[in-house]
Amino acid sequence: MVIETRHLKTGDPEPTFPSDGKLQLVSMRFCPYAQRTHIILEAKRIPYDTYNVNLTNKPGWLTKYSPLGKVPALGVPTENGLLFIHESLVIADYLDEKYPEKLLYPKDPLAKAVDRLLIEQFNGVITAYYKAINDPTAFIDVTNGLDKFEAELERRGTSFFGGSIPGMLDYMIWPWCERIAFLKYKGFSLDKARYPLLINWNGKMIADPAVGVHYVAPEFHAKYWETRSAGAPNYDMLL
Amino acid sequence: MVIETRHLKTGDPEPTFPSDGKLQLVSMRFCPYAQRTHIILEAKRIPYDTYNVNLTNKPGWLTKYSPLGKVPALGVPTENGLLFIHESLVIADYLDEKYPEKLLYPKDPLAKAVDRLLIEQFNGVITAYYKAINDPTAFIDVTNGLDKFEAELERRGTSFFGGSIPGMLDYMIWPWCERIAFLKYKGFSLDKARYPLLINWNGKMIADPAVGVHYVAPEFHAKYWETRSAGAPNYDMLL
Repeated sequence: MVIETRHLKTGDPEPTFPSDGKLQLVSMRFCPYAQRTHIILEAKRIPYDTYNVNLTNKPGWLTKYSPLGKVPALGVPTENGLLFIHESLVIADYLDEKYPEKLLYPKDPLAKAVDRLLIEQFNGVITAYYKAINDPTAFIDVTNGLDKFEAELERRGTSFFGGSIPGMLDYMIWPWCERIAFLKYKGFSLDKARYPLLINWNGKMIADPAVGVHYVAPEFHAKYWETRSAGAPNYDMLL
Repeated sequence: MVIETRHLKTGDPEPTFPSDGKLQLVSMRFCPYAQRTHIILEAKRIPYDTYNVNLTNKPGWLTKYSPLGKVPALGVPTENGLLFIHESLVIADYLDEKYPEKLLYPKDPLAKAVDRLLIEQFNGVITAYYKAINDPTAFIDVTNGLDKFEAELERRGTSFFGGSIPGMLDYMIWPWCERIAFLKYKGFSLDKARYPLLINWNGKMIADPAVGVHYVAPEFHAKYWETRSAGAPNYDMLL
């Protein structure tokens, strides 16, 4: 049995996490950082349950599992019960090291370091994306940030950053690339002449099974942001 | 032969890095982030050269090796010449993976994730430390941040966070713990009753050979900060 709750909010009782050895993920359906964890779990075919939480009216018990009250938080079964870890990139490292059968980071330490630096550098695109939702002057920062990634795909000469299949770098930057598509409702779209490789990559990513499970189409991201901008995010829209 | 340059500044010619297979570290003698890399290299006994740079009057070629003009940047020999990586924690991961003979992170992925989160959490102490140099009201934030680490040493029941010898967590937080000692000139010192384990840890860390090589005593940190506060950091003071 796989559990996926609706978004638990202030006053909702604390869940009783099962002790069946499955990973327990505290998430939010529209959170791109939590989406990173979902994608890795799907890519590695690791069974897990999902406890969605309302991040506007947070349940009081959330900080027991995630000290800063953020998602994702991942409960890992140990001899002494579940131990929760947080921070999407720390969780990514943990999962890649604990379940190395389908390794997502490059095996070579130097190639891995280069991909980690690109994930770090992508933070510039993330900052610009959030700004661009309400401020069209930030579109240029989104495109400037993406230039590096278009050039990197060209340098690598592969469909994905990870090669012939997606790797950790592909999956870690994906959640915001998915969301950039919804900026079309704000008047922004990627220039086909400037980003031929990223646009091709985008289509292939959507078709990847691990991405597909939690993929949200641009119109639903737009609807979610409408409710969020109005001060009452409809977290359960897709559940 | 081991190279260690004085701090190269604007106008100084770009160094010709040797192609003898040694790692090449771009550093600054008083930079705590670069100190992280020095300590790991010493702990693992990896030979390397040091190119110190003046971070006030940066040489123009610095961004070729470190895109944001920051240190540390580590040049790694490859078939195509040196490849430079930056970000102290990315470099830490790289070195621990590439030179696993003396592993610094815990071998267990979950224990490693927990240590990574503590390194992340230590950023709160770092922020408070810099504030406290000029603002005594921030002393309380330093102590509040350190409480977690005192409690963690007690929970682990070992001299070091890494056990009977220092590990990655010990080394990654050390550079600022070394510097907190110089806050005594600002009227701040660690309360012996509140931090018995951290104070004991502090003494043992200074005695660790990998830490000892780049250890700077409080009076020299104080002198450096005097010159820095006056707008003309004396980077070469110890060279």
